[in-house]
Amino acid sequence: MNLKEKTVEKHVLYTGKIINLRVDDAELPDGKPCTREMVEHPGGAAILCVEEGKILLVRQFRYAYGEELWEIPAGKLDRGEDPAHAAARELEEETGRVPSSVEFLYLLYPTPGYTNEKLYVYRACGVHAGHVHPDEDEFVSVCAVPVAEAAQMVADGRIRDAKTIIAIQRLLLEGAKG
Amino acid sequence: MNLKEKTVEKHVLYTGKIINLRVDDAELPDGKPCTREMVEHPGGAAILCVEEGKILLVRQFRYAYGEELWEIPAGKLDRGEDPAHAAARELEEETGRVPSSVEFLYLLYPTPGYTNEKLYVYRACGVHAGHVHPDEDEFVSVCAVPVAEAAQMVADGRIRDAKTIIAIQRLLLEGAKG
Repeated sequence: MNLKEKTVEKHVLYTGKIINLRVDDAELPDGKPCTREMVEHPGGAAILCVEEGKILLVRQFRYAYGEELWEIPAGKLDRGEDPAHAAARELEEETGRVPSSVEFLYLLYPTPGYTNEKLYVYRACGVHAGHVHPDEDEFVSVCAVPVAEAAQMVADGRIRDAKTIIAIQRLLLEGAKG
Repeated sequence: MNLKEKTVEKHVLYTGKIINLRVDDAELPDGKPCTREMVEHPGGAAILCVEEGKILLVRQFRYAYGEELWEIPAGKLDRGEDPAHAAARELEEETGRVPSSVEFLYLLYPTPGYTNEKLYVYRACGVHAGHVHPDEDEFVSVCAVPVAEAAQMVADGRIRDAKTIIAIQRLLLEGAKG
């Protein structure tokens, strides 16, 4: 079954600091015309860091929701930046922890209906102390949460961020395997 | 620690079919001015449906990525629609299966840096046959995948959609618990 949609003409309606908006003329698999709205995003990196049975979570106000959320450290890629580098960078910037290496875990598509964001998720290995230095417009507080408590926070809805739920589920699955 | 950002003035730059774009003047916790780009989304519902050890996945071309993806059935909420109703509706529209009830599993925030999308994830219970009737501009193919194979598809990166990974990892955790 042919599912492919063809781009007829791209229209960039907004070019911003983090995202761009495109509303393209396109063609459905059956040849009929359609319009596709999409957000262009440079991609991001997130990092799962566990020390002594505790997962590092950052609490951050998220403007779009008007809420403070619990998330694993993450941020967007700088232009041309390797996602593994970005993951280690974000960990240090937000929590002051420095990994000696990172292990690739997932390439995630957060919400494929309208964005092209690719989110690379890593695990921090061999972590030691560095320096906290968040972005100028970023206010975060850091908390080391026992994995069992983080699991409870997913179960009762206190953790809602998708990448963070995936990371915590992974820890639980690894624990279940022994 | 005060993390809250205040809205100074909302600016709607685009009002679309599925999403709107806002670029607001806001104020950081320390009182400094900032700009916040965000996508307004009506919210969505997704549904995990397992029958005889197989999970129902739909394969769909996603314009923003230019790729066909494997996902659990999902779609946006109609205006004022109850998310549980939307989940059951999307399951029937995309796969022809009808649940006699749905169980709430998660409220997910897919990518909180720039969208306010709330995605409600349910499990289909007591499933029976109905009619497939996809949206006019929606072309999907349906596949019932054994849970172990779906887990392998997550592990090797064939499944990248975040909500789908969360649903599959949940099944694995339930299996691990016995």
